[in-house]
Amino acid sequence: MPNIETLSWHGNRFGTLHMIDQTLLPTEINVIECRNVETVWEAIKMLRVRGAPAIGIAAAYGVCIGLQTLSADTDLSAFRNRLGEVTDYLASSRPTAVNLFWALNRMKAKAESLATKNVSEIWEALFTEAKAIHEEDRHICRSIGRFGQELVNDGSTWLTHCNAGGLATADYGTALAVFFAATESGKKIHVYADETRPLLQGARLTTWELMQRGIDVTLICDSMAALVMRQGKIDGVVVGADRIAANGDTANKIGTYGVAVSAKAHGVPFYVAAPTSTFDLTLSDGSQIPIEERSADEICCGFGKRTAPEGVNVYNPAFDVTPAELIAGIITEQGIISLVNRQNVEKIVRE
Amino acid sequence: MPNIETLSWHGNRFGTLHMIDQTLLPTEINVIECRNVETVWEAIKMLRVRGAPAIGIAAAYGVCIGLQTLSADTDLSAFRNRLGEVTDYLASSRPTAVNLFWALNRMKAKAESLATKNVSEIWEALFTEAKAIHEEDRHICRSIGRFGQELVNDGSTWLTHCNAGGLATADYGTALAVFFAATESGKKIHVYADETRPLLQGARLTTWELMQRGIDVTLICDSMAALVMRQGKIDGVVVGADRIAANGDTANKIGTYGVAVSAKAHGVPFYVAAPTSTFDLTLSDGSQIPIEERSADEICCGFGKRTAPEGVNVYNPAFDVTPAELIAGIITEQGIISLVNRQNVEKIVRE
Repeated sequence: MPNIETLSWHGNRFGTLHMIDQTLLPTEINVIECRNVETVWEAIKMLRVRGAPAIGIAAAYGVCIGLQTLSADTDLSAFRNRLGEVTDYLASSRPTAVNLFWALNRMKAKAESLATKNVSEIWEALFTEAKAIHEEDRHICRSIGRFGQELVNDGSTWLTHCNAGGLATADYGTALAVFFAATESGKKIHVYADETRPLLQGARLTTWELMQRGIDVTLICDSMAALVMRQGKIDGVVVGADRIAANGDTANKIGTYGVAVSAKAHGVPFYVAAPTSTFDLTLSDGSQIPIEERSADEICCGFGKRTAPEGVNVYNPAFDVTPAELIAGIITEQGIISLVNRQNVEKIVRE
Repeated sequence: MPNIETLSWHGNRFGTLHMIDQTLLPTEINVIECRNVETVWEAIKMLRVRGAPAIGIAAAYGVCIGLQTLSADTDLSAFRNRLGEVTDYLASSRPTAVNLFWALNRMKAKAESLATKNVSEIWEALFTEAKAIHEEDRHICRSIGRFGQELVNDGSTWLTHCNAGGLATADYGTALAVFFAATESGKKIHVYADETRPLLQGARLTTWELMQRGIDVTLICDSMAALVMRQGKIDGVVVGADRIAANGDTANKIGTYGVAVSAKAHGVPFYVAAPTSTFDLTLSDGSQIPIEERSADEICCGFGKRTAPEGVNVYNPAFDVTPAELIAGIITEQGIISLVNRQNVEKIVRE
């Protein structure tokens, strides 16, 4: 995003993590300065920072912040205890996006892999690892954009659900990277953005990012996606992902599955764009992906006003799983998985 | 609804039309007293009264209110002029629900059919006609309920979109009449209610009506309907209708088409419940049904708070058309059209 970074680190390993509070966009631009791990946990839990890759980056920096409670002369065992405590705590913030666990595991693995027993050196290496995770994501997003834009014809119209843009990543995005890269290569496109109930990431964030980059965008309610497809307006769909099982089944923001069902019914190709860190090869299919259920208040009084009767039963899953057979391709930083199945997933992800 | 009537007339032909302001439900119960036709027009336009049958009843009474500007010694030609003026004006309130035009045409036809040239007698006959339209709708809803509940098994779970309940009709509803009648006949059912963006008639009105009648209801976002179908939770769908073409293509609240596409994909039967006055046999298929587009503000700031960037493009169709081939049956007061096609529609509607 021009001038605004989703996440940024200020200072050395005793520095602070700054993040845009995405719950207030687009009407307010407010930066949260995280100085303790509890603030990072709360920001992930409350979706102040959201989007699978951005959650991973925030968690990696969150580990660095959690370690700041230690004094300089901490011994190795106390250091390891604190590291375990901090990673376990951050892992409890949200259950679905695998990038969270991937980033935390990568930090733990880094600490374990080092031959040195010098706490300060390990600590410094962890800080370097967090910065690397952040920096790598920038490159990954650009690479996803480069591969994905090959699928986009000049003059075509696309639909996306939720926000898999610069705000969901280090910058540039995954699904939106495809649109950004297509536009940068001179193609003129039009994007329909599903508003994405209950938290309206499409209305609040995706439209905002696309408008800032001068891309034609039309906001619709989620329930209008099937209609615009029937009207023949949509040439393709691209969405992000929170976790992808070994067979290609993809968990993403609630409503994605319905879009995929409609796309299938209307012969519209449905693509997923995600870094390889989003794959969880320990899960053989999507039925094993844990789906977070969130508070009824998000649906009943999400906008500061009660819009359903007191005491009504609510079902509020934050994600759904789109089966591989509805996915025309998964766009990763390593290339596009065009026939989505176990074998082709393995080929790209193990590389 | 217990103790609350959607619409009620108070007094003789110089009386007033009372209606619940449905835009304020369920948090506020406010009754609007219409004393001039402009108030009726505004109430229809702004969805203070909504639901195809209720709009028809409001329009019929609206004609009576519009005539109240005439003095007792008005001559026949002035009376006819005013009648034309009032019906044209009310017809301009909303374009999609055919019950509006049906009720206005019925009022005009009544005036034309009378042999008498006595203005007072015609006027009185029109008032009687409006009350008849109102009263007939009660019976129609009960009859729809009786036919529809035959489709409902004890212990089954249903999904509905928008509000086709007591609030959308004289009372008892069309789609919800099916659930009410099933419950009254001793069947235990569970209903999932789509919240129905942008105006949340499902969240605000359907859940409220079902809760008041002690029926198990779970509120979901529109984007969750496909997921609950995939989870095998839904045995059938019933929705209302705003206009049905001669071949059975059905216009209903935006989002209905997407629900029908999902129902088809999951093998869930999708039913429409509507009085025969909702059929428009002058339209050969759904492509001819005019679809109202409404203000961007309904999507961008519907909750008293801006939730999308200033100046964003918005597409806000209020209805969509579900093709007959996705409809398992249309439940009318004359019986169920089980194989939805031109011939079977004609058989039921012409009866």
